[in-house]
Amino acid sequence: MAKKNGAIVGYGGMGGWHASFLKNSDVVNLVGIYDIKPSRLEAAEADGIHAYNSLEELLADPQIDFITIATPNDFHKPIALQAFAAGKHVISEKPVTLSSADLQEMIDAANAAGCKFTVHQNRRWDGEFLVMRDVYKSGDLGPVHHIESRVHGSRGIPGDWRQDPKQGGGMILDWGIHLIDQMMGIVNDRKLKRIWCTCDHITNELVDDGFKLEMYFEGDLTAHIEVGTSNFIGLTRFYMTGRDGSAVIPDWGNPCKVVWCHNYNEKEVVPVVTAAGITKTMAPRTDTSISSKEIPQPAADVHDYYRNWVRAIDGEETQIVTHHQMMVDMKIMEAAFLSDRTHMPVEVDLQF
Amino acid sequence: MAKKNGAIVGYGGMGGWHASFLKNSDVVNLVGIYDIKPSRLEAAEADGIHAYNSLEELLADPQIDFITIATPNDFHKPIALQAFAAGKHVISEKPVTLSSADLQEMIDAANAAGCKFTVHQNRRWDGEFLVMRDVYKSGDLGPVHHIESRVHGSRGIPGDWRQDPKQGGGMILDWGIHLIDQMMGIVNDRKLKRIWCTCDHITNELVDDGFKLEMYFEGDLTAHIEVGTSNFIGLTRFYMTGRDGSAVIPDWGNPCKVVWCHNYNEKEVVPVVTAAGITKTMAPRTDTSISSKEIPQPAADVHDYYRNWVRAIDGEETQIVTHHQMMVDMKIMEAAFLSDRTHMPVEVDLQF
Repeated sequence: MAKKNGAIVGYGGMGGWHASFLKNSDVVNLVGIYDIKPSRLEAAEADGIHAYNSLEELLADPQIDFITIATPNDFHKPIALQAFAAGKHVISEKPVTLSSADLQEMIDAANAAGCKFTVHQNRRWDGEFLVMRDVYKSGDLGPVHHIESRVHGSRGIPGDWRQDPKQGGGMILDWGIHLIDQMMGIVNDRKLKRIWCTCDHITNELVDDGFKLEMYFEGDLTAHIEVGTSNFIGLTRFYMTGRDGSAVIPDWGNPCKVVWCHNYNEKEVVPVVTAAGITKTMAPRTDTSISSKEIPQPAADVHDYYRNWVRAIDGEETQIVTHHQMMVDMKIMEAAFLSDRTHMPVEVDLQF
Repeated sequence: MAKKNGAIVGYGGMGGWHASFLKNSDVVNLVGIYDIKPSRLEAAEADGIHAYNSLEELLADPQIDFITIATPNDFHKPIALQAFAAGKHVISEKPVTLSSADLQEMIDAANAAGCKFTVHQNRRWDGEFLVMRDVYKSGDLGPVHHIESRVHGSRGIPGDWRQDPKQGGGMILDWGIHLIDQMMGIVNDRKLKRIWCTCDHITNELVDDGFKLEMYFEGDLTAHIEVGTSNFIGLTRFYMTGRDGSAVIPDWGNPCKVVWCHNYNEKEVVPVVTAAGITKTMAPRTDTSISSKEIPQPAADVHDYYRNWVRAIDGEETQIVTHHQMMVDMKIMEAAFLSDRTHMPVEVDLQF
């Protein structure tokens, strides 16, 4: 496979990540970068990476096949439109933009220019997601009725443009997009019909510094997505429960523990006795009715993202993160903001 | 303190619990029981407890000061009204009845008859609740913004009248009433303004076999109450988080772990590295910025419930579970059912 020549627009945190990453890529040559800050251009040169003097100069370079946009979120759209006009394919960092209308404009422009256009949903290669998706598809839990996906930190939110709503700050657009994209990738066998969302404003008034999103799918499957940045004790990363069993990943990097029931009506109930009462209903099960196992997180190579991208440019593969999926994710985030603002549920009809 | 003479109406599971419990009471003589099932009357006699032949006979016995009603939920109201008419004080098992209108009728009848009337909210003596209430009131977490209270079992719901909606079956009325009562007892310094609730129907179509209730209080404090009966892996029993720290009780009987932050802006961030990316925002804190401790569950004597009751009958104390609190709990459960049925939030204005 011939390598493609890529450039990065925006040489901040994620731009730097892409640059380091592409140095080890077997499918991409990193040709250069551009950033509006002179200090970042100097940093790139110091890192041995060519820095263009302007976005126009970069886009005019005929050797460049595609750009990866890693700027603040509100710049993704104008830069992408400019790139399509120059005939360049575009990967945008997530969130791709701030509204579904803007996204449609970007998709239309890409299609009109005959350019490929996708989003860097790198967390589709995270082991936590992959193992939970496998468990869901295995059917081992019986019909699944609830899934929870949660990330908890305690450092508030980054103090730069990520605190500015006009620039697309806040946790729905930052971490929410990953967890929403993962959830829709797990529950891709049915439609999402309704959402209910509440945002936190604990350390920040202007943007959400966390949120809780309830998702209601067809077939009585519910999901809970939560991001917190004021949680000094973190709760369960991933949880899934069905008629016949449950699965949990307590924290980053942990294997998935699966417990399933092989003798539902087992009568050996040892009641839970507390200070003030007993309960048989909530009595834990014993080994006479349940079994358990641990599933390690599967190996995954996030370089497959750029490998697919290069093949997609060549028309050899469908791009992994499709326009349809990008739009689904965006509409869910829009519905989440609307639900939070109005304190009302929002009806949707969305499926990967 | 002179002992009061009590009788139990309904000699099933909870009636038997009250009978055993009152044998060890220092404030109540158990005079007898009544049950509509002859087999239960025989069981009581075999247990050495006098069995009345009818409810009328029991209520006509002048030595009886009060009755404890431990029947299916739909019988609480008619039996209580009959008892008030006979001049007996009444403890009802929870839930006190099935609607706030019914409850108001019971309260009015008790007041008209000059009888005391309360509900057996025994789980106000559970150590899990008591320690979380203490943590909330201590202010150690800074302003608290979220609380979770959860019980998870995997045995479905009991297969008797508890599966009949007309008899008051389902988990909101069974376990929900405890967790709601506890939550309102913790967050008693502000009003509950809105609720959102979704019920489960995993093992049972007719009644809820679990539910998730979101509670929105004044001052941006949210709470999550959850009961599940198809959870083969149980999640955290109690969780509380505030600006300066978090607290957790993972499971029944566990001490409360408290983590608090003494150096919020500590910069020693070790990013979380996963298969597909890194995050500094979600990096866990280290001992340079947080401290932790374990608080054992406080000792509690649920006999204090009946001790207070006897003193309340004598006019020496206010009853611990007040009519106002009973009505607040009932209105929250009504709002929860309404929210689930309509898929809409329900505005309320309730405080203990």
